Parts: sequence; C-alpha cells; structure tokens
Amino acid sequence: MGWQEWVAGAEKVFQISNMSRQKRVIMAVIIFGSFIYIVLTQAVHILGGAPGEPVHPEIRKFCSSASRKNVNIEYEDSNLPVIYVVTPTYRRPEMVAELTRLGQTLTMVKRIHWIVAEDSHTCSPPITSLLDRLGLSYTHLASPMPEVYRREKYVPRGVSNRRAALQWVQENGEDTGVLYFLDDDNAIDIRLFNEMRLTQTVSMWPVGLIGEYTVSSPVVKGNQVVGFYDGWPAGRKFQVDMAGFAVNIGYLKKQKKVTMPYIAGHEEDGFLKSLNLNLKDIEVKADGCTNILVWHTRTAKNPSRTLRLAHHQATNIKPLTDNMRKMGMIK
Amino acid sequence: MGWQEWVAGAEKVFQISNMSRQKRVIMAVIIFGSFIYIVLTQAVHILGGAPGEPVHPEIRKFCSSASRKNVNIEYEDSNLPVIYVVTPTYRRPEMVAELTRLGQTLTMVKRIHWIVAEDSHTCSPPITSLLDRLGLSYTHLASPMPEVYRREKYVPRGVSNRRAALQWVQENGEDTGVLYFLDDDNAIDIRLFNEMRLTQTVSMWPVGLIGEYTVSSPVVKGNQVVGFYDGWPAGRKFQVDMAGFAVNIGYLKKQKKVTMPYIAGHEEDGFLKSLNLNLKDIEVKADGCTNILVWHTRTAKNPSRTLRLAHHQATNIKPLTDNMRKMGMIK
Repeated sequence: MGWQEWVAGAEKVFQISNMSRQKRVIMAVIIFGSFIYIVLTQAVHILGGAPGEPVHPEIRKFCSSASRKNVNIEYEDSNLPVIYVVTPTYRRPEMVAELTRLGQTLTMVKRIHWIVAEDSHTCSPPITSLLDRLGLSYTHLASPMPEVYRREKYVPRGVSNRRAALQWVQENGEDTGVLYFLDDDNAIDIRLFNEMRLTQTVSMWPVGLIGEYTVSSPVVKGNQVVGFYDGWPAGRKFQVDMAGFAVNIGYLKKQKKVTMPYIAGHEEDGFLKSLNLNLKDIEVKADGCTNILVWHTRTAKNPSRTLRLAHHQATNIKPLTDNMRKMGMIK
Repeated sequence: MGWQEWVAGAEKVFQISNMSRQKRVIMAVIIFGSFIYIVLTQAVHILGGAPGEPVHPEIRKFCSSASRKNVNIEYEDSNLPVIYVVTPTYRRPEMVAELTRLGQTLTMVKRIHWIVAEDSHTCSPPITSLLDRLGLSYTHLASPMPEVYRREKYVPRGVSNRRAALQWVQENGEDTGVLYFLDDDNAIDIRLFNEMRLTQTVSMWPVGLIGEYTVSSPVVKGNQVVGFYDGWPAGRKFQVDMAGFAVNIGYLKKQKKVTMPYIAGHEEDGFLKSLNLNLKDIEVKADGCTNILVWHTRTAKNPSRTLRLAHHQATNIKPLTDNMRKMGMIK
C-alpha cells in the first residue's frame, strides 16, 4: 500500500471531505502535535535525555595512570581484591591540602587504586606531583561540569568527574575489585577498607555527620537492610551518602545501563537504582551498621584572593606566593 | 627609730598640725590610695596575674601514656630526636573524626610522641581507645579552661590544655627532642616532620589558609628571618600561627619562665616571647620558607543534637546512636 492509497483509506474511514473546516483544523493540530511530541521525546532519548542524563557529550580527559605496588606497604597479597577509590575534586584554596591529607591516609591501605577526577578541563600539576610522590597506584582524570548545570538552582557538583571515573573503572577495573566514592574532605577510619574489600554486590554502613540525624545509616533487622535512617528522605529509594557504600566491579559490569544522574541530592539514589539493586541484596558491614568508620566532614571555605606583592619582590614571599598560585590557593 | 619617732619626724617635715583640714584630707586620701594600690598589684603579681596568666590554679589530669616503638614503622633509629606533637581538642560532634584522621597520619612518622590534651575535666573513652589502637607513643591529658575565660569576648580556646601539655613536655621530654603544636583540624604534609626534626632552638615555616593573605610566613632574606608576612599584625612581635614553628626541648628547658598567655590571638606571640627568642635565632625551614607543608584547615561545625529514638528500639539504630553519644556526636 502506497501513501496515496493510505490517504485514500484514511479519507474513507474519517470522512475528511465531509468534515467542517473547524474539525479539520483540530484534527491537523492533533496529528501535527503528536508528530512533534514523538520527534522531540525520541530526540531527547537518543541524545541521552532521561532525567539527569546529559544532552550534550561530556568532555573527558585522561591525564596519567600508574599501576604499581603501594610503596608504603611492606607486603601486598596480589590475590586481595583491589579497592578503586574515586575522589572528585575541583580547584579551590583548600584542594592541595585536602588531597595531601587524604592521599597520605590511602598510602596505609593495601591494594588500593586512587582515581582523582577533577572538575576541570585539565589536570592540575600540583596534583600530578602529589600522586606521583605518594607512591600509590593511581589514575588522574579531568572532566568539567557541562555549563548548563552551573546555572541550576541546586548545582550537581562532582557528577561529571565521578561519571568519568565510573567509565574508567568499567573499562579498566578488575572484576574482583570494589568501587568506593570518597570525597576529598571526608574523614575515614582505615579499618573501613577491610570491611568493604570482599563486597560481592553492594555493601553499606553508616556515615557520620550527615544532616538532621547527624548520621545516615541503613536500618538493619536480622542482618537485612529493611530501610534507611536519614534526615532527608526526598522520595529516594536508597537514602544513603556517597561514602556509605561500595560496589563489586564484576557486579557493576553486569548491569545494562550504569549511570549517575545530574540531579543534586539524587546522585547516590540514581546510581544505585541503575544497578538494579534490591534492599535484600545489600551486604551489611560495620558490625551490623552499629559503628561509624567514615564521616562526612566538610572543610570551611577560604576566599580565593588576588594578593598585591609590590613590596615583596626581593624576599621568599615572591616564590612562596607563586607556589600558592600554582596550588590554586590564590588567584 | 620607732613608729612614734617616725610620726614625729613626719609631723616636723610636713608641718601637719599647721595644715588646713582640707589639705589633711587630701593627703590622707593620697597615702591610703597608694597603700591600697600597692597591696592590690602585689596580690595580683603573687597570684600569677601577669597579662594572660591564670589567677586560680589550673586543673590538670594525667590520664594515660605509652612510650613505645611506633607499630606502623618497620625500623626506627633510636638516635633520631623524638617529635612531641601537642594536639589540643574538645568534645564536639567532629572530635573523633578529626583525631582519627590526624592520628592515622601520625602513624606514618618515625619517632613521634602524640600528646592529646582535652579541654575537659576527664579524658574521653573513645579517644583513649583510639590512642591505644593506633600503636603510637602517646600521652592523654585533660585540662579544662578556667570558667572565668569562657565569659570573655574573645575566648582563649586551647590554652589550658596546651599549658598542661607544655608542663608534661618540660618534665618528661627528651632534651634532644622537638615540640610541635598541631591542631586536630589542620592538614599536614608529613615531609614537614623531617624539616623540624633537627631544630636546635626554634624553627619556622609558612602555614597556608590563614587570614587576609591566605598564608602566614616569616619574611626571609639571606636565610635570615627579617619580619613576618601575616594579615593580622596586632602588635605582635612574632606574627605566626601555632602550626608554624617547632621548639627544641633542651632549649625550652633552659628558659626561666616558659608560658602561654590566656589571651586570644596572642598565644603564639606570648609563648615565643617567653622563650627569650630573637629573630636572628630562628631556623628557616621549608626551602627558605617558600613551600607550604601545613595548612590551617578548619572543619565546618555540626550542631550537637538530641535525637528521639522511640521507634528504633529493635534495630541497629539504638546501638549506633549509643555509640554516637559516647563519641560526643549527639547529646
């Protein structure tokens, strides 16, 4: 059946020629509107426009990587699963201080691979030096937040760079390993790494210093997660903080469409939903979720200043402030 | 000469009996006033009333101490000078998180003795457990701020407990060792410990993330300290942050009256002045004071809440929040 026959058939069924002009206009509007609607939704779907999915391609820059034995650990059992710690960061006066503090802590952990992912177009040289100096296995990435999200009321910080790290882990991570998101200003008791290391699907534990309840934790009955104790439900299925769970890489790779949405406050929930996770699959850690081994500490912000140094050209203050500028401490 | 002869002599000199009643009253007021003034100032001096010195005796409680080889360090050269790190702290939601983070970092440093001094009448059990678990050499003290200072406009926080630690170091520290003050929320690059270890008098370096200039640093010319680059001069001779210097213990013990005043913002200056220090004696570290190896980071405060838990008696949330109460995270 050609399109002319199809039109003739439609003419017969709807008796278009007998219709009033008004009815014809309404019908045309309905048909044209439906057509536009279908085109637009399909376009959004094709371009990745599910809630929180980016419409434009994201910029991802791989800077450097080292796969090596942690130089600070005397003996590393190569049968031990690797923990891939993902730390998103961005240029600000506290960046080098935070990453130095956290990176040094990670050198005490066996079989770790630290992925530092900057919200930036390029990798910062002081961070490259730090990663090289610490002697850890590491990967250094950069992925800037798409401009469109900077204009939102609640800005989804740290998503583009976590997504870049997620892609790296999916492509390079060992199946026996574990993925863990740890922010640069968090505080962690290194015993938590022992808790998460043998995760088979997704494991969870409490995170201290969160919101209204001063903690965010799974509610556990008979070693099963039955809900969440968190001051901000916000319609979330998984009311957890980013530092409150780890994911087995083999399990991660088996999922069809792993993602993290660009929706502030719903990054964790969106990510865990994309893993097709059920409450009953969650592995309970930290002594039945009764101990706190990680805290959502936040470091007070310092303004990024421009310093006037006319009177300090002949002393140490000139090279000192040059170093500070490289570290992003001043403009 | 008896007092009667003395009065007669005074009568003769001043011709008191010839004076008008008015003159006699004025003279009596002057003499009595001078007498009261001398008594009061002497009393303040006798009771320790120099500026910033406490009028009442301070409460100091020694809780526990362990002198041992750092269990995390494979080989410790016992000829290496010990670094005595003094960390004042106080009960608040972030306390255990901060001390866990800092304490773990210190386990990476050779020949270190950590003095945790609480602003409190008693030592907190979670801190005792932490110190025992870390495997460091340590001393745990408690010394509450005298009540009178809590009512001041600018409260001199962390003085009573630093003074208690200072006394402990003067009585127990090895002469070859070094004293260093490091707050629980500071961030430190552990290479700084190598810089300070061989200090002979007082050594100094820049501290990042301080005040108007984003740094506080000695100004160095020809490897000599000639002044300070600090946004808050405030009439201080030594414009430095508490984390910006280390002191040789032998040098400390040789000084007559080592003290730290209860004057907010002038603790460092008062302490260094009491060491009879001159600018020319200061040892310049951190590559001529051009590198930043310690930052005055500050952790955002969380409110200390009372949680209602009527609905959570049968799950993990009860023991979890009991633990949080012990850690000082909630009331």
